[in-house]
Amino acid sequence: MAYFTTRPETGRHFLHIPGPTNVPDRVLRALDNPPMDHRGPDFGVMMLQLFPKLQQLFQTTSPVIVYPGSGTGSWEAALVNTLSPGDRVLFCRTGQFAASWIEMAKKLQLNAEIIETDWRHAADIDAIGAALAADTAHSIKAVGVVHSETSTGCVTDIAAVRAAIDAARHPALLLVDTVSGIGALEYRHDEWGVDVTIAGSQKGMMMPPGLGFNAISAKALEASKSSTMPRAYWHWQPMLAINKNGYFPSTPATNLLYALDTGLDMLFAEGLENVFARHQRFAEATRRAVAAWGLETQCADPRAASGVVTAVRMPQGHSADALRRVILEKFDLSLGNGLGVMTDKVFRIAHLGHLSALQLVGVIGGVEMGMRAAGVPHREGGVQAAMGYLSGN
Amino acid sequence: MAYFTTRPETGRHFLHIPGPTNVPDRVLRALDNPPMDHRGPDFGVMMLQLFPKLQQLFQTTSPVIVYPGSGTGSWEAALVNTLSPGDRVLFCRTGQFAASWIEMAKKLQLNAEIIETDWRHAADIDAIGAALAADTAHSIKAVGVVHSETSTGCVTDIAAVRAAIDAARHPALLLVDTVSGIGALEYRHDEWGVDVTIAGSQKGMMMPPGLGFNAISAKALEASKSSTMPRAYWHWQPMLAINKNGYFPSTPATNLLYALDTGLDMLFAEGLENVFARHQRFAEATRRAVAAWGLETQCADPRAASGVVTAVRMPQGHSADALRRVILEKFDLSLGNGLGVMTDKVFRIAHLGHLSALQLVGVIGGVEMGMRAAGVPHREGGVQAAMGYLSGN
Amino acid sequence: MAYFTTRPETGRHFLHIPGPTNVPDRVLRALDNPPMDHRGPDFGVMMLQLFPKLQQLFQTTSPVIVYPGSGTGSWEAALVNTLSPGDRVLFCRTGQFAASWIEMAKKLQLNAEIIETDWRHAADIDAIGAALAADTAHSIKAVGVVHSETSTGCVTDIAAVRAAIDAARHPALLLVDTVSGIGALEYRHDEWGVDVTIAGSQKGMMMPPGLGFNAISAKALEASKSSTMPRAYWHWQPMLAINKNGYFPSTPATNLLYALDTGLDMLFAEGLENVFARHQRFAEATRRAVAAWGLETQCADPRAASGVVTAVRMPQGHSADALRRVILEKFDLSLGNGLGVMTDKVFRIAHLGHLSALQLVGVIGGVEMGMRAAGVPHREGGVQAAMGYLSGN
Amino acid sequence: MAYFTTRPETGRHFLHIPGPTNVPDRVLRALDNPPMDHRGPDFGVMMLQLFPKLQQLFQTTSPVIVYPGSGTGSWEAALVNTLSPGDRVLFCRTGQFAASWIEMAKKLQLNAEIIETDWRHAADIDAIGAALAADTAHSIKAVGVVHSETSTGCVTDIAAVRAAIDAARHPALLLVDTVSGIGALEYRHDEWGVDVTIAGSQKGMMMPPGLGFNAISAKALEASKSSTMPRAYWHWQPMLAINKNGYFPSTPATNLLYALDTGLDMLFAEGLENVFARHQRFAEATRRAVAAWGLETQCADPRAASGVVTAVRMPQGHSADALRRVILEKFDLSLGNGLGVMTDKVFRIAHLGHLSALQLVGVIGGVEMGMRAAGVPHREGGVQAAMGYLSGN
Repeated sequence: MAYFTTRPETGRHFLHIPGPTNVPDRVLRALDNPPMDHRGPDFGVMMLQLFPKLQQLFQTTSPVIVYPGSGTGSWEAALVNTLSPGDRVLFCRTGQFAASWIEMAKKLQLNAEIIETDWRHAADIDAIGAALAADTAHSIKAVGVVHSETSTGCVTDIAAVRAAIDAARHPALLLVDTVSGIGALEYRHDEWGVDVTIAGSQKGMMMPPGLGFNAISAKALEASKSSTMPRAYWHWQPMLAINKNGYFPSTPATNLLYALDTGLDMLFAEGLENVFARHQRFAEATRRAVAAWGLETQCADPRAASGVVTAVRMPQGHSADALRRVILEKFDLSLGNGLGVMTDKVFRIAHLGHLSALQLVGVIGGVEMGMRAAGVPHREGGVQAAMGYLSGN
Repeated sequence: MAYFTTRPETGRHFLHIPGPTNVPDRVLRALDNPPMDHRGPDFGVMMLQLFPKLQQLFQTTSPVIVYPGSGTGSWEAALVNTLSPGDRVLFCRTGQFAASWIEMAKKLQLNAEIIETDWRHAADIDAIGAALAADTAHSIKAVGVVHSETSTGCVTDIAAVRAAIDAARHPALLLVDTVSGIGALEYRHDEWGVDVTIAGSQKGMMMPPGLGFNAISAKALEASKSSTMPRAYWHWQPMLAINKNGYFPSTPATNLLYALDTGLDMLFAEGLENVFARHQRFAEATRRAVAAWGLETQCADPRAASGVVTAVRMPQGHSADALRRVILEKFDLSLGNGLGVMTDKVFRIAHLGHLSALQLVGVIGGVEMGMRAAGVPHREGGVQAAMGYLSGN
Repeated sequence: MAYFTTRPETGRHFLHIPGPTNVPDRVLRALDNPPMDHRGPDFGVMMLQLFPKLQQLFQTTSPVIVYPGSGTGSWEAALVNTLSPGDRVLFCRTGQFAASWIEMAKKLQLNAEIIETDWRHAADIDAIGAALAADTAHSIKAVGVVHSETSTGCVTDIAAVRAAIDAARHPALLLVDTVSGIGALEYRHDEWGVDVTIAGSQKGMMMPPGLGFNAISAKALEASKSSTMPRAYWHWQPMLAINKNGYFPSTPATNLLYALDTGLDMLFAEGLENVFARHQRFAEATRRAVAAWGLETQCADPRAASGVVTAVRMPQGHSADALRRVILEKFDLSLGNGLGVMTDKVFRIAHLGHLSALQLVGVIGGVEMGMRAAGVPHREGGVQAAMGYLSGN
Repeated sequence: MAYFTTRPETGRHFLHIPGPTNVPDRVLRALDNPPMDHRGPDFGVMMLQLFPKLQQLFQTTSPVIVYPGSGTGSWEAALVNTLSPGDRVLFCRTGQFAASWIEMAKKLQLNAEIIETDWRHAADIDAIGAALAADTAHSIKAVGVVHSETSTGCVTDIAAVRAAIDAARHPALLLVDTVSGIGALEYRHDEWGVDVTIAGSQKGMMMPPGLGFNAISAKALEASKSSTMPRAYWHWQPMLAINKNGYFPSTPATNLLYALDTGLDMLFAEGLENVFARHQRFAEATRRAVAAWGLETQCADPRAASGVVTAVRMPQGHSADALRRVILEKFDLSLGNGLGVMTDKVFRIAHLGHLSALQLVGVIGGVEMGMRAAGVPHREGGVQAAMGYLSGN
């Protein structure tokens, strides 16, 4: 049940948009504790236990900053701390989220260099390498890549991006958006040589929206010292100075921090490796259903297929939004919509966060029954295919 | 997530025992409000609004009593208020719950007359009529019938029981256990001429266990005045006297009353007729899955098949409990066990309470995948059959 | 805030009736977890951890039984398990709760022998001893004593009752009601030789109403085997048989068990000795306030003055209920009313459960301001006197 | 109880820092509902009901923007939308929060003109008028004033500031920080001619931290069109465009919106006028206690004394932080610390939000007992003085 609904409530709503995701009861019950004195002694103790958990999640020994804000805010934080107006930044426009980040960079008066893709593949790593190699003057200050492009369901191999940068012997910073990847897909900030990792709370972390994150390399921190971008709220330096003692320069979102702490504990209790494997398993089951229906996924490269969301292409002449409406009304299941050029052409099944095999079976069943109800041409048997995979697994 | 678990939590637990059932978040959030002064003015106002809602649920203009207790306690309340030690009571042993109620009657020094059944059908109404007709001395003081026999998934037609009593021109009281029926199956205390209706909170009312109910006819109330059974806690008279003002003779379970109030509001918001229809639809979908698997239901009479639970008979030589264990461990789904003579021979799929079509698809999927994992012989296609029915409906 | 209120909510309600008491947020958040399968493996594990905690609370190695029910139900359980209709039971009528228990015994067809008191003192231990000594035929089967008489604020020394029984070399069972004492006042079931301890959930255990308890000595258990009282719901034997494995014969109140488990953990985290000392400290502060106001406590014996509730006698000609109404309306504070002969002559300040010094200062301030607003003659300075004690302590 | 604490929990924590404040249970229970699809139809309906409530709170017919963020973020939003690097902004440094806002303006490359005060009075309206009158070139683009300066407990008369601007016939925008005033003190965005009102969620709105607000006049919106400040996250235009339909450009903090909606409903149920009067009453009671103790408030002008927080000056040679530590450890009461030049010289008693007279008596009692325990020289009788006022009121 949501806080507000206009539809009859006859069971639990199935929320399968790619974020916010299903939040465990345990996390909701952490969230709803009374706020505490964010300048008192207990708060500092709590945070000095919480920061290392965040580092473990991001697989880093560098600091991780938490903002009251959204993933969008974390994009801005990454850009305004490391860059100056007019700086060149290389982006690969892999989907709607990459596109929005690029728009933001422009608003922030950065000079965005764009490598286009067909929005059905991961970032073009060869093109990134080539662009950097061509930039012998090293005027490109940063490379911005979306790890898990939530609009298309394609995942970019970040280690490969790093390898391409290194191969080009280029000093550009590597900025990575893993808003929908963190806590669901394998992610290694240090090992992959990421300079700023950008994340949000409402997906793999299994908590509500409202927190944004920046994990910061030493190199990124150094770069921030010479940035001339006007900035205050997102400024890393005062944040890091006081975070050391477990506090924040302005009022933190205490209740969301409780939820974060509990969500992380649950991820570690399951074991990050198990969490990642579970997401891959559910993603594969979903793709088998899509294949059984005779439909196509938006992601055209199986190696890039996402563990967190599957974007499904509608048969020609059928409206994805009409289908989603039928599915919501008849089966109380919320699916993600197609974004940008994919509007009405794609619907997205999120399979991330606090999720079990049976919930997934319900979701796939809801899509299959919805297609039938909406008259969308498909073959039956998607659920059966998914179950065949899940029961042997 | 439950309060306590030894298993990994990777999504929401599927609780499909026939009570307690899935409790809506809205009800849980009512439950967890602080207790209030149960002798203060607000409490009385609250209860004077709540009692009529209970009457609406039971379809009666007579009083409905609420006890801190279980359904078992409500059985006792019905017996000790209306009967005296040594009184003859006619029961129809339709399953394990009828059997337990009979055992209780014996412990309470009542003289139980038992009509046996094969535990695969509803109560034998002809036999009841015959027994009453034969009792020309009217020494049978009451007839005890289980409306929804949760152990077998058979439902007895209470209006027909009343007709049989009337046809025999017999003055016996009609005591009906609808612990698992109320709030899920059509039920009409007044119209069906029931004298005491026995119910519990943890099933169709969509709230946790801990409350028991007696709806009482004028005739039952009259009978209670001459009962010589030692009784105090369950005594109707002092309860009714003070209930009139909205209060209780001893401390009520305040928080469970909050949950009750909210659960009833949700049932009425959906509309009782819609609630009943939803349960029938989910029951039919479940039975179609069972049939598709090539398995048999315990209830052998389609007209008696229950809207709240389906008991499934295991193939010869296979253990129901072993299957349930596999399903719990692999798919985090709790099913009901076989009771009494059905132990290990039957498993029960509850489909009542706060439940949507997609949850049910997940449940049926869990059973099908579990049978495959456990090596239980069956045909595939149960989920497909259920979905075929649900999507056209 | 309560679930339901007719008054404006401008801050947290002060609930200072002697039960239900203030429930910690942590307990409410345990309460509102979804129900679980009470026949599944996790439930058994949970209960096998919970029963020993209950034994620690009652200070016993004997079993402690938990019923869905109220303290009143636990009275009945104690009586119907150990006694038979017509049995003589010796009670000391120390206040309204003793009186109600006696009424129950009569309804259960027991033969209640009553030692009267002035309702301003603890039980008359000499009279108990004398009555037992006079009963050379040992026809008195049990002695029923209220440990903490919630209506008067007097506490009886249970060890002294046991000593009196032993001095009379009488085999009567000792049945003790500590509904409002357990978890707040020192209590030692084994060391004090209690045969049945009767308790409820909604006071010192810091959880909502809805559970009743019986701690049972070997002697009481033996006595239960020869009882001829009709009983089923409260029957110890089937309960104990299945409790051994962590289960219950009928559906337990799962959510209240979650709350119980958490409440006990909190009591042990504070340390029972600290809990008891805190209650004595708050009681003394309250009594100093009453003395400063120039009012009298109902309990006339300082050695018997209760650690959990203080009953205050109104000045002649003034209505306690009118005062309580003013205090509720103007200060949103619920106080206990006078019961039985004390109706309208006494109001009761509960100071038990989850309670801090500052909450208590607020309560005492509310009474003092209320008396002023209601025109009840008193001297100012009650809060000051309480604070003087609390700050030095 | 907080989510995390290192101290024993023996009752409810008293949180009396000036934000976050006590959050009503009703709001916490709204907060902990599952997130919903922020692009789905229900969300839009919810927001189109919520935006008008926000307008009612701010007393405006202009749009009110909600950010995931803190009050600090709302400062930044106000500045980056209306101004351009190098712009002159006139501030009155009335305390620590004004000082921090000025620091932010500098970081954002604005040219801050500062009118100093002694941090014991409201803003110097004559000086503001004089500065504007002197600025015949109208190079001052905005005036920034803190309505309720939380560090000193002084409140500035915003209508008077507007009058001064108008008297100077100066076109500067009026930017007002009422982070700790909104929902507790009278506030009239439209009537007072405010151009941007800056607010946060965690004070008078009675909800947790995590949301920031900008109420925007038509003139401010017009100014935003010519601002050259790099901005994206805080950019009003895309926000307003999509807010019209009830949606947000990036993921909103859904759960905090539930809390906001419920908190506003509670404020309107009490009635804003009653809410404001209650705050004034509690503030006066607090000041009477301070006077009775023989201590001084930081705010030296009675007409400016705040309805939300009272800053108390320590006797010479005594440490405010040591006192706060004693009060926290002995009485579980969190008070605000002295900020900036007031560090260790002032402690602050917050009396805003969801608060009753009895809670306030507890708080004042805690301070009085704490001063006694810590050996801080004072006269007794603060609580008595507060109660004298509150009971006659």
